[in-house]
Amino acid sequence: MAVTPVGFQFAGVRCGLKNKRRDVGIVMSDRPASVAGVFTQNLVRAACVDYTKEVVEKGTLRAIVVNSGNANCCTGEQGKRDAVQMAALAASSLSIDVTEVAVAQTGVIGQLMDMAKLEAGVKQAAASLSTEPGPFLEAILTTDLVEKSAVAQVGSATIYGAGKGSGMIAPNMATMLGFLTTDLVVDAPRLDAALRKAVGVSFNCLTVDGDASTNDMVLAMANGASGHEPTDEELDGAMAEVCTSLAKQIARDGEGATKLIEVRVTGTDDPKRAALAIANSPLVKTAMFGCDPNWGRIIAAAGRSGVQFDPAKARLTIWSGDEPHVLFEAGAPAPFDPVRASTALRSDEIVIDLALGEGGSATVYTCDLGYGYVRINAEYHT
Amino acid sequence: MAVTPVGFQFAGVRCGLKNKRRDVGIVMSDRPASVAGVFTQNLVRAACVDYTKEVVEKGTLRAIVVNSGNANCCTGEQGKRDAVQMAALAASSLSIDVTEVAVAQTGVIGQLMDMAKLEAGVKQAAASLSTEPGPFLEAILTTDLVEKSAVAQVGSATIYGAGKGSGMIAPNMATMLGFLTTDLVVDAPRLDAALRKAVGVSFNCLTVDGDASTNDMVLAMANGASGHEPTDEELDGAMAEVCTSLAKQIARDGEGATKLIEVRVTGTDDPKRAALAIANSPLVKTAMFGCDPNWGRIIAAAGRSGVQFDPAKARLTIWSGDEPHVLFEAGAPAPFDPVRASTALRSDEIVIDLALGEGGSATVYTCDLGYGYVRINAEYHT
Repeated sequence: MAVTPVGFQFAGVRCGLKNKRRDVGIVMSDRPASVAGVFTQNLVRAACVDYTKEVVEKGTLRAIVVNSGNANCCTGEQGKRDAVQMAALAASSLSIDVTEVAVAQTGVIGQLMDMAKLEAGVKQAAASLSTEPGPFLEAILTTDLVEKSAVAQVGSATIYGAGKGSGMIAPNMATMLGFLTTDLVVDAPRLDAALRKAVGVSFNCLTVDGDASTNDMVLAMANGASGHEPTDEELDGAMAEVCTSLAKQIARDGEGATKLIEVRVTGTDDPKRAALAIANSPLVKTAMFGCDPNWGRIIAAAGRSGVQFDPAKARLTIWSGDEPHVLFEAGAPAPFDPVRASTALRSDEIVIDLALGEGGSATVYTCDLGYGYVRINAEYHT
Repeated sequence: MAVTPVGFQFAGVRCGLKNKRRDVGIVMSDRPASVAGVFTQNLVRAACVDYTKEVVEKGTLRAIVVNSGNANCCTGEQGKRDAVQMAALAASSLSIDVTEVAVAQTGVIGQLMDMAKLEAGVKQAAASLSTEPGPFLEAILTTDLVEKSAVAQVGSATIYGAGKGSGMIAPNMATMLGFLTTDLVVDAPRLDAALRKAVGVSFNCLTVDGDASTNDMVLAMANGASGHEPTDEELDGAMAEVCTSLAKQIARDGEGATKLIEVRVTGTDDPKRAALAIANSPLVKTAMFGCDPNWGRIIAAAGRSGVQFDPAKARLTIWSGDEPHVLFEAGAPAPFDPVRASTALRSDEIVIDLALGEGGSATVYTCDLGYGYVRINAEYHT
């Protein structure tokens, strides 16, 4: 059984919004918790994003109610009413105030919610809360193949993260659903600052396909049940650890992915921009799928990214575990054994390491692009 | 036999840089021609790009020598020497001055040229020039399935365009190889202005996979052999016609593509930016491949593009021929028959028409994303 923070309960049930698997979940704190959130920057936003943003601004939360299978986005005025109704249903089932309930939704865009099913699901979820987070982890998934969670300890306290995301994943403040709970003593402004820092090096450095979703949000709740007040270093470190773990799990479970790819760029004025250009390049991603050390595509993607560098000073290394393969150095191909390099690329975890000179560095998490991505997204009919 | 301008000859031969098909081509004018060019903006550029840019700046050209099968990019000092040597080989075979020869190359990045093969190919091409452009059209192809050419008449004069491009296609001043020849009387500055205008509405509005190449160039040669001096309107119109035709041919022949997709966006401050976000979205492209009217992905891509609009005023129509399917209107799903819409999407030519309000409009040319793209790019080993 997973270690979860004191005072939090979880539930996940199936009400039929998805064909299979659980699709309605609740996270609940037994006392008011500080709350912070980051939300999609997509101009087209689901009703729940605007709704929850307002709720979070008040700084205190008791519960989050989530459904998968329907994003309730581009659903007009009816969609807005349905998001409010979802919060009200959860509040009444949990006997708490509606202003203390956040709503998150994920799934297909442009279809009205089946509110009858949802109502049954919310009631059933409220009746099945427990400290076991497994059913909740399942209830928030869409095309994900695996459940995603991460945990960090701070003294006797715990930070627990639950996440989902597989497609329509690109960094834009938040890029999927993530729910962090902790029994640390942290007020809302501090929680907000720590969350933004952690998101900056994790979810905002994550891309599966460059498509930012309409429904992204990451919420953090701190209920203080442990009595432990962390130092800034403890809090920032643990939050970043949990968020980075979730981000890597999402990249590894990207739609159709066969491997996790970390793109590290050092030097240049904007290493993250160069790393994102590489991570989003379909040519780089298909080469990785094909286990092909076609490094020209990596250099070409960096070259078009808009960052300034001198190709004659660039060095490209691909790491498979602790084994480095230098492919390009000093403006010319490095002598390498293509068979050995291709074999190394069969690993399910690859690091693309591009050193462009002196300066800062950035790491972006992504995955390869294979037949599975096309199958999932061409055959996932509306 | 294709109509080509007076005074131009073409050749295409096979020297073994590619496994199959011709791989070395020459375009030659029987007299000095005005020349203009646009080149990739990628920071990582093949040696031939910098070389030809300098040649074109002089304003006069006699010949272009092209090879496919090797981009001669990221090949260091040896690559630079090889590009110069290629021009010299062509000049001596054609008995013209080396300063009047442009060099274009396309193919895999990061491999040194096989200069022995190339030398034989250039000599053979120089010996087989004719007014029939077919062999040249074949010689410039890489993963392209079909040859690409377009022609426009201006009075008794002709503008003839030859192009190639299938992957690593994204607008960044020029995005593939294109060679325009005309017997119109046009000096170099006028030719340059007309070429830039034409490229702006054609190749720069083209994307297959968002990856801008290291070797892109479009060259135009005008040798005046017709004696006809066009008006600005004639010249701009005919150049745009030829370039747009080539751009659409490239999109339709995009790697793995099953259809040509035109994305038209009207209104907003930057309609081209919104159109490119839609055209580059892997989720939109896979939905088109799957003939799925999953319009939420189109709206979501526009929403993350960075342009400003009010989703409540947006209208999304998909056109298959003259048949419109309104999918989203006034912030909510429009009532449409999904079976009829899906059937319409089986067409090999689709227009995605997103009206966001008053203002300018832009059209971007792209294709769908299917299994073929993954196959070509995961299995095209270096």
